[in-house]
Amino acid sequence: MKLYPEVVVLRLGHRVGRDKRISTHVGLVARAFGARAIIYFGEIERSVVESIRNVVSNWGGRFEVYVETNWRKKILELKNNGWRIVHLTMYGINIAERGLIEELRGCEKLAVVVGAEKVPAELYSIADYNVAIGNQPHSEVAALAVFLDRLYGGKELCISFPNYKLKIIPSARGKMVVRHNDEE
Amino acid sequence: MKLYPEVVVLRLGHRVGRDKRISTHVGLVARAFGARAIIYFGEIERSVVESIRNVVSNWGGRFEVYVETNWRKKILELKNNGWRIVHLTMYGINIAERGLIEELRGCEKLAVVVGAEKVPAELYSIADYNVAIGNQPHSEVAALAVFLDRLYGGKELCISFPNYKLKIIPSARGKMVVRHNDEE
Repeated sequence: MKLYPEVVVLRLGHRVGRDKRISTHVGLVARAFGARAIIYFGEIERSVVESIRNVVSNWGGRFEVYVETNWRKKILELKNNGWRIVHLTMYGINIAERGLIEELRGCEKLAVVVGAEKVPAELYSIADYNVAIGNQPHSEVAALAVFLDRLYGGKELCISFPNYKLKIIPSARGKMVVRHNDEE
Repeated sequence: MKLYPEVVVLRLGHRVGRDKRISTHVGLVARAFGARAIIYFGEIERSVVESIRNVVSNWGGRFEVYVETNWRKKILELKNNGWRIVHLTMYGINIAERGLIEELRGCEKLAVVVGAEKVPAELYSIADYNVAIGNQPHSEVAALAVFLDRLYGGKELCISFPNYKLKIIPSARGKMVVRHNDEE
């Protein structure tokens, strides 16, 4: 199943140490909710990248993880290649605003930017859309998940990830996991 | 605006140091997405509790933060008082399962349990519902946000929080924040 629009996630402002687990969760959410890649910028722990790649290796899918240095250059490059830039921020237009999600669904390719506590002021003008998942302080992990859930209308929670080693059989009680070999 | 069902969030398995920011995000999401309280169990940094209370003090609402010691006793007490227990876990029944969210909306009071990496096996049998926000590994912060967004059908993103000092005016570009006094 292919989801539209195509999404890549850009994670800005990662702070080494402090943001390690939050940035990992951002990456895992990007994958689980149907984005095709995440790009981190600047210095980041190798363990963040590795733990997401481990999840891809065990649980499947073709999700990619990149680390780049210059966010501004990357965003302008994406814009030039037809990507629309969505910046998730508590200061933006509420996703509940009439017509907004429909407009975003009409785009072909979305680059979704999630910042840490502070993002460069410039980002607000570079972005095509500054979107708030509610105008209250909460979490970039939550914002990304709810954004993708609404963008894809829930279809993303039923994705079949190809090339998995492990897969869960949903269960009312306890844990049921199959290994790929078990099924052959 | 009062949301139904009433929700309290229970955070289990917090690990001091490692989970500090994730557990803070869980609390902020609980507040922003319409729960009325969060209960942490066991040892937890004072800064987690304080940063959530600071958000309540600045941004409003009547959200409460508690720290308790015995999760089992608390859950059984809630059950005896008419609360239904929803455990969010990647091993559970997918929230996309037909009829599930409607059934949960029909409950009066939900205690939503979010664990860290490992939760006691017993929890799977104590819970009335083991619910997966997709059966892929991602984040308890994301799981809680998407769960509440679906439970409340998006109404929670338009809550007016009473007694705020700060409030955002949604903006297509940049940041607009009003202080309570500015409006008087």
